[in-house]
Amino acid sequence: MALDRLKQAASHITGQTEPPYPFDPLSESEIEKAVGIIRKEHDNLFFNAVTLWEPRKAEMMAWVADPEHTPRPHRIADVVAIGKGSKVYDGHVDLNEGKLLSWELTEGVQPLITMEDLQIVESVVRKDPKVIEQCGILGIPAEDMYKVYCDPWTIGYDERFGSNVRLQQALMYYRPHVDDSQYSYPLDFCPIFNADTQEIIHIDVPPVRRPVNKAPPNNYHAASIEAEGGYRTDVKPINITQPEGVSFTMDGRIISWQNWKLHIGFNYREGMVLSNITFNDKGNERPVFWRMSLAEMVVPYGNPEHPHQRKHAFDLGEYGGGYMTNSLSLGCDCKGAIHYLDAAFVNRAGAPTTIKNAICVHEEDNGILFKHTDFRDDSVTVTRARKLIISHIFTAANYEYCVYWIFHQDGTVQLEIKLTGILNTYAMLPGEDLHGWGTEVYPGVNAHNHQHLFCLRVDPNIDGPKNTIFQVDAARGAGEVGSKENPYGNAFYAKKTRFETPEQAKSDYDGASSRTWEMSNESKLNPYSHKPVSYKLVSREVPVLLPKENGLVWKRAGFARHAVHVTKYDDSQIHPAGRHVPQTSGEPSEGLPAWIAANPNQNIANEDVVLWHTFGITHFPSPEDFPVMPAEPMTLLLRPRNFFTRNPCLDVPPSYCSVPSGVKQGVSLVDKLSTLAFGGEQKKDCCKK
Amino acid sequence: MALDRLKQAASHITGQTEPPYPFDPLSESEIEKAVGIIRKEHDNLFFNAVTLWEPRKAEMMAWVADPEHTPRPHRIADVVAIGKGSKVYDGHVDLNEGKLLSWELTEGVQPLITMEDLQIVESVVRKDPKVIEQCGILGIPAEDMYKVYCDPWTIGYDERFGSNVRLQQALMYYRPHVDDSQYSYPLDFCPIFNADTQEIIHIDVPPVRRPVNKAPPNNYHAASIEAEGGYRTDVKPINITQPEGVSFTMDGRIISWQNWKLHIGFNYREGMVLSNITFNDKGNERPVFWRMSLAEMVVPYGNPEHPHQRKHAFDLGEYGGGYMTNSLSLGCDCKGAIHYLDAAFVNRAGAPTTIKNAICVHEEDNGILFKHTDFRDDSVTVTRARKLIISHIFTAANYEYCVYWIFHQDGTVQLEIKLTGILNTYAMLPGEDLHGWGTEVYPGVNAHNHQHLFCLRVDPNIDGPKNTIFQVDAARGAGEVGSKENPYGNAFYAKKTRFETPEQAKSDYDGASSRTWEMSNESKLNPYSHKPVSYKLVSREVPVLLPKENGLVWKRAGFARHAVHVTKYDDSQIHPAGRHVPQTSGEPSEGLPAWIAANPNQNIANEDVVLWHTFGITHFPSPEDFPVMPAEPMTLLLRPRNFFTRNPCLDVPPSYCSVPSGVKQGVSLVDKLSTLAFGGEQKKDCCKK
Repeated sequence: MALDRLKQAASHITGQTEPPYPFDPLSESEIEKAVGIIRKEHDNLFFNAVTLWEPRKAEMMAWVADPEHTPRPHRIADVVAIGKGSKVYDGHVDLNEGKLLSWELTEGVQPLITMEDLQIVESVVRKDPKVIEQCGILGIPAEDMYKVYCDPWTIGYDERFGSNVRLQQALMYYRPHVDDSQYSYPLDFCPIFNADTQEIIHIDVPPVRRPVNKAPPNNYHAASIEAEGGYRTDVKPINITQPEGVSFTMDGRIISWQNWKLHIGFNYREGMVLSNITFNDKGNERPVFWRMSLAEMVVPYGNPEHPHQRKHAFDLGEYGGGYMTNSLSLGCDCKGAIHYLDAAFVNRAGAPTTIKNAICVHEEDNGILFKHTDFRDDSVTVTRARKLIISHIFTAANYEYCVYWIFHQDGTVQLEIKLTGILNTYAMLPGEDLHGWGTEVYPGVNAHNHQHLFCLRVDPNIDGPKNTIFQVDAARGAGEVGSKENPYGNAFYAKKTRFETPEQAKSDYDGASSRTWEMSNESKLNPYSHKPVSYKLVSREVPVLLPKENGLVWKRAGFARHAVHVTKYDDSQIHPAGRHVPQTSGEPSEGLPAWIAANPNQNIANEDVVLWHTFGITHFPSPEDFPVMPAEPMTLLLRPRNFFTRNPCLDVPPSYCSVPSGVKQGVSLVDKLSTLAFGGEQKKDCCKK
Repeated sequence: MALDRLKQAASHITGQTEPPYPFDPLSESEIEKAVGIIRKEHDNLFFNAVTLWEPRKAEMMAWVADPEHTPRPHRIADVVAIGKGSKVYDGHVDLNEGKLLSWELTEGVQPLITMEDLQIVESVVRKDPKVIEQCGILGIPAEDMYKVYCDPWTIGYDERFGSNVRLQQALMYYRPHVDDSQYSYPLDFCPIFNADTQEIIHIDVPPVRRPVNKAPPNNYHAASIEAEGGYRTDVKPINITQPEGVSFTMDGRIISWQNWKLHIGFNYREGMVLSNITFNDKGNERPVFWRMSLAEMVVPYGNPEHPHQRKHAFDLGEYGGGYMTNSLSLGCDCKGAIHYLDAAFVNRAGAPTTIKNAICVHEEDNGILFKHTDFRDDSVTVTRARKLIISHIFTAANYEYCVYWIFHQDGTVQLEIKLTGILNTYAMLPGEDLHGWGTEVYPGVNAHNHQHLFCLRVDPNIDGPKNTIFQVDAARGAGEVGSKENPYGNAFYAKKTRFETPEQAKSDYDGASSRTWEMSNESKLNPYSHKPVSYKLVSREVPVLLPKENGLVWKRAGFARHAVHVTKYDDSQIHPAGRHVPQTSGEPSEGLPAWIAANPNQNIANEDVVLWHTFGITHFPSPEDFPVMPAEPMTLLLRPRNFFTRNPCLDVPPSYCSVPSGVKQGVSLVDKLSTLAFGGEQKKDCCKK
């Protein structure tokens, strides 16, 4: 039985509940309490966010190290609220003391757009006379306005309207039938919505008009597949069961699995936050990462024609990966034995609301962990791998992002992201020249080129917080072919560049040199290799930011200018494109560029540092991505290097082990359930070689 | 019941067996027959290879198109045999006609080293007085010579000995106990073995001697893990079963799965060969690839000190990925319902021999295939993915290579390779300066830097054999920020470079531009996008060849000089480092460089072409890779682009589908076996939103 159930059972008996762990997201009752405290002093607000203000690192590290003799960090709510006239308030509420710590009017910023904010726009758009007029021009009669839909985006930034009024742009679509995919019927104009007055203040209309698409619907729902001949019937079931339960335990939101231990947090913005990640190295619980999250992302589109430059969504900072998260289902999103965690948020009205099953925790078989056969006698050890996956999926209007944090037995942490969902589309005329900025993925449907650039924030804690980042390149040795030092020209080595200042640490990707970055503790050397204990960032999907220097996206998404930035740790530096992202002009750039510019030559070597890594893909759409895109995976690894003195997963029971002496050894975990596909005798049993 | 079993049953009744499919590897009886035919005319040979001489492409394509009216390609054996005095014979035997087609003495070449060739060396080494003497110098008494082991490698190339005598170099090790891992006890000298005379002809002795390691054994076998505290007991079983059987059918060696159909071949050298890969696109069986295989690889080591420059194994061309293949076991190497294929070879004496279960064919669940939720009403379609995996594993002395060809429902073909096994190691003195060429992974054990570079041979057949290769780079649009054409600087597009000659097609990797290569049929445009139907090579693990230009490895492994080479199809061009690889000097370079140099300006656009892709990793060892390395995966994708008019896997039954209208649709394939990890009511059922 899991620890959390034991504690639950215990609390039923004693009537007492444990206080939340300091990293735990705010519960519904804590959100309610925070709102209540604010309302005592401030009124007429709608709430944008009430989230955990995470304990300050120094305070939390001290408490973690010695919880008996250290004050427990207070539960503090970080609040964003909006008043009349697009007035934005930032505040903090101490829940332990029941008091408002701060409450400030913040000028010239716009907090992110919530799901509720989005929902309002469509109904306004449908009733707006100028929108109705534009729809008429494209061939949609006024009585069909209920067939008109929009994906409301933040306006991003539009210099005509600035940052003081809260605005959304409505990307317009049409559905012949309510069940049709609207993305086959994009409309060519773009209304601008004022969130304060709840009205359309402007419509961007292109110089050349494109009537609504006449092509038949391109759907993927069950009725349409049935009409086209039905589903295939040759996918036989694969059953995945865990009759003895899972291999992990939960103590509240702290998970222990194999040698890993970590806290699973969640917030409205970053979605999953993993904290205090440690690895038990033969009884020694070694810190690895203090905190990891996807901190920001940007999806710039490549069509230079106005107003498409505004299409560059910061899905986390402008909408919130947590707010957009899916409620997951057994057997649909994950298979096996699943543990779900819910996510509580505030709604616009200030009431708590919960997304059930926001996070999925489960294990999967992962093929071969290691194997070696001695060619002399076929003596062999083969061991199967298991992985732990902590995941959530969020829907950003048309796209879905499936985020998987994967923990491996060998000490590797993997981040995998699958992109699926639907392409953002725009209208086109038959035969229109798309100038290479997009692809006709279906007649009359132009899907623009775009990038998905994610910013991973890693707060390393490699055997302690004082770490150094090295850039590592595979490099040829000195000496030409024929020289004494390199006669055959085969010398090569790992060239390391030590990062000493944030300015110097701005670094780009180099595929040819297999560039990686190592997070090292220089004060702790591996006893065998005499190299610093390290974790290496291995990331191979690292395109450059294609929007040009000093252009709109470059200015707003400063974090994406380089593959890696390194900063000295600062409690306040969480959001690399700024705390409030919508309608930032990028003049000056918020977040990372501002922090680095403030102190470009600060020492970051052998310091408490944060590594910011931008990775992703560049997507040139094609028809096979439509009407719904097969999941496109991308992945990166954080691998131990010189961290352990040997392979740390040798204690995973093998499927089979035989030795040259022939002495019968070990236990056999051979999977007796596997069978031959077409029956017959098994020709060979790995237990009887 | 699978087709092959039906046919087997039928053959029992009729007494007739089907002739082998022309792509099928030679059977045991065919090998026997070929050897018999040769022996009628030639004697005193030992056999190096008797393998299928694949049908010529034109002949085979004609037969595949119309087997009723086209002569069936003959079964021809491609033979390599060695006579006294290292004399090498290449021959061909027509098995249908029962006659020797050709028999030639080939001067100055050495065919690959077989497992039997390897086995001989160790016994010779142990008895050689000079080797015994060297062991004595390192501290191993003569009576302990049975504790001395060697991994015999081909000599690669050593200018002192040339190419006319068949040589191996013996990488020397010691085992205190027969079950100890020898790689913790490397010896510092290197005997050279003459395979013809079966004697040691030379020993390379380093100027500084390194006595045998005194460190305790570093083992991973069951007894050693038990002695250290035993295996962990917290890995609960994950059961994977397929109660209704597999979703694929076999007709001999032709597999059909979902829309894919292909022939699974195998030979001693490349291992798996996949031929005539087609995708059934709504009833239309479209050709995609004519043939795919791993055609070569090289593992250069980065220590410039003599004789380590000789450590650059061509594991396929010098040893044979097929010859070294593992016999696989249910539940150990793969889980679920498995179909195995055996592999028949000739042995040294000319008798057929079979590796049972050489190839594993199985399916796996692959997470989410696609998903989209409408944020307005939470209507959602989520569909799980299945993949088909065709794999084999080969052991190249210390290392294992696990090769997985993976077919996806969305038309993607993936090649995944996992590296596991044991680092090649060399002796070192305590505190010795390794000069950055290696890492002390265990006291007294130096693991040298190395690369694993694989050469994938792709013979595309994108809607027919006439294809064109394009290099595709993500590129910024013209016009500076503020210009009329690119006011916000956000323009970007896919820049395509058309390859017209082999010389021009030599291309390197560019990670920053997310470089890919497209194989296109320019005469067939996608009806929607009006772009050529294509498959895109997406490969992100593409280090440069680190050994320098005009150095030994650069000369011998010409295929690795560039990420991509393209040649016009030629039946004889299969092996990019040459037909006989051991002891090639690289002067001139065999294989790809020679073919291209012979006709550098030949037209390759809209022609029958072959794409050669070199990918891999650069490995700087660390202690966690030892004493056995956790599997390190690398992967590449071949993805359809503008090939289909829409997502080709929309007919895969969804786990769940709901629509905005609320009309109940479709079937539900919800996995009813998934459960909550810690019991309790399921909070949410995806069928009842």
